[in-house]
Amino acid sequence: MTVTFADIEAAAARLTGHALVTPLIENGLLNDRVGVRVLLKPETLQRVGAFKFRGAWNRIAQMNDTERKAGVVAFSSGNHAQGVALAAAMVGTPAVIIMPSDAPTVKVEATRGYGAQIVFYDRMRDNREQIAANLAAERGAIVIPAFDDEAVIAGQGTVGLEMAHQARALGVELALVATPIGGGGLAAGLSTALRNLSPATQVWGVEPQAFDDTRRSIEAGERVTAPYTGRSLCDALESPMPGVLTFPALQANLAGVATVDDKEITEAVRYGAMVLKLIIEPGGAAALAALLSGKLPVASVKAGGGAIGLVLSGGNIDPALLAQILGNPTMTP
Amino acid sequence: MTVTFADIEAAAARLTGHALVTPLIENGLLNDRVGVRVLLKPETLQRVGAFKFRGAWNRIAQMNDTERKAGVVAFSSGNHAQGVALAAAMVGTPAVIIMPSDAPTVKVEATRGYGAQIVFYDRMRDNREQIAANLAAERGAIVIPAFDDEAVIAGQGTVGLEMAHQARALGVELALVATPIGGGGLAAGLSTALRNLSPATQVWGVEPQAFDDTRRSIEAGERVTAPYTGRSLCDALESPMPGVLTFPALQANLAGVATVDDKEITEAVRYGAMVLKLIIEPGGAAALAALLSGKLPVASVKAGGGAIGLVLSGGNIDPALLAQILGNPTMTP
Repeated sequence: MTVTFADIEAAAARLTGHALVTPLIENGLLNDRVGVRVLLKPETLQRVGAFKFRGAWNRIAQMNDTERKAGVVAFSSGNHAQGVALAAAMVGTPAVIIMPSDAPTVKVEATRGYGAQIVFYDRMRDNREQIAANLAAERGAIVIPAFDDEAVIAGQGTVGLEMAHQARALGVELALVATPIGGGGLAAGLSTALRNLSPATQVWGVEPQAFDDTRRSIEAGERVTAPYTGRSLCDALESPMPGVLTFPALQANLAGVATVDDKEITEAVRYGAMVLKLIIEPGGAAALAALLSGKLPVASVKAGGGAIGLVLSGGNIDPALLAQILGNPTMTP
Repeated sequence: MTVTFADIEAAAARLTGHALVTPLIENGLLNDRVGVRVLLKPETLQRVGAFKFRGAWNRIAQMNDTERKAGVVAFSSGNHAQGVALAAAMVGTPAVIIMPSDAPTVKVEATRGYGAQIVFYDRMRDNREQIAANLAAERGAIVIPAFDDEAVIAGQGTVGLEMAHQARALGVELALVATPIGGGGLAAGLSTALRNLSPATQVWGVEPQAFDDTRRSIEAGERVTAPYTGRSLCDALESPMPGVLTFPALQANLAGVATVDDKEITEAVRYGAMVLKLIIEPGGAAALAALLSGKLPVASVKAGGGAIGLVLSGGNIDPALLAQILGNPTMTP
């Protein structure tokens, strides 16, 4: 049940030639501001604009011919939707994606663009798991979970595997790596990879303040939900609870969990665009927001030496929201 | 006088550890749209957000101690300004930059942020070359030209050198490389590098329609100016005439020059942000605009095989202009 490093290496082999090896880059102004070298893993540049393609591909590439005829079903606010839609299209299997009716337009359009059929649900009223299960049963299709699945976690883990290899090629020791956390698939896979390839690296997760279920769960020692207090800007990170499979890995591997509010997220999105020259969606900017707002233990990295790695996990932001954030003059990079 | 491939290799050695080796990346949606593999060189991610740091560093790193005490002077609408300001700060030599009073705010602020002193001039009334010559004479400082200088051209040429090596590492043949052209420093250096490392590659330059001095000059067989018909969105490419040093290289090495209008540029900037997830300034998006609007000979690349390389030369766009472009709903990626 536990995802192993061997699973992540097998996923990496499956992804070769299908997913992109995103670069590990840095920015002089960010390095100067933080006072430590910061290496950025822009999964914004990954196929579908988010790391989610990795996990979806790793799962879908393992389907046999009979399964491919029946197709796949997934539910997602948008990035997993796109990952499943594209991976399904690439192997020629039909995909039905269940999306909330208030998902960002850019994500709905892109998912449709990859050829998936979309079924909308009401975030407050409907049970998306039930809708997915019913649809899958009707069609004999496979449900591709957004995070609580071994193949999906192993696929996302290739982000950490690449970061470790790329940092080594640059001659840099990763003292700390921070990544956004929604359901924890990326953080679970990435931390498993780093634990094996770079055991001295502290891995931090970053959640929206209003969806700090992972922080609460680790504190409680068991999976708990965060009380619902309203939406966050981070549509990609609004998971109610860590997964059955992801939680043990997060519990075992994470050095800490930081939380960021919408103002800190907005500033990070703006900093990404104006200083890093990268389009980062709100949820994708959570780790950057934590770094810029002083929520990560930078002083200990400075003292101990080594670099900070940040996953910029997705770039699918509605143009109107980005325009609004860019038009906000209160933030100075 | 002519910049040689050896000059570019020497520049690359000087830049190591100071400039970034920007990645060579690709995007599945762009590949699908064009029908040919497209490799992007995002100099938007370079120090100062543009390739200009390369040439400035290559020149300034060669100054001796006496020269460094006296400092440097440059005139530029913004990207060369930032490149000189940062390179000067890195070696500890004072920099005075002469900028048009209507330069993009983001470029003025960044240049000041790197510690340079800024002197404004009126684009219509003042002679910036004269102001620079006077300031340099007063201080015994060296003028760092924006393009018509061997060291600057050789520095910019490292973009082409990296592209050739990176494409080879990917196992890809570059059938065509397109780059924006202002004064021609980048195009001259890049085409010289490619001529040596990848002689079968056709190099295309792309100019704003209103500043097509290179196209006209190559057609005329001598350096001519384009008649002034007003500003372009591409503040970085509004040079009146190719350089004395750049023109012979452009004439010898370019397979063609395409032109793009402001509408095509706007669409490319929007496509960059929403599909490629990269912030590209108008001038930096000229080659992408030419590709997206059918101005490059894609059919011949398709027929002959190989990939297209595009230089995305800069990312310094005012947030208000980007917000306006993102808010424009007429363009669909």
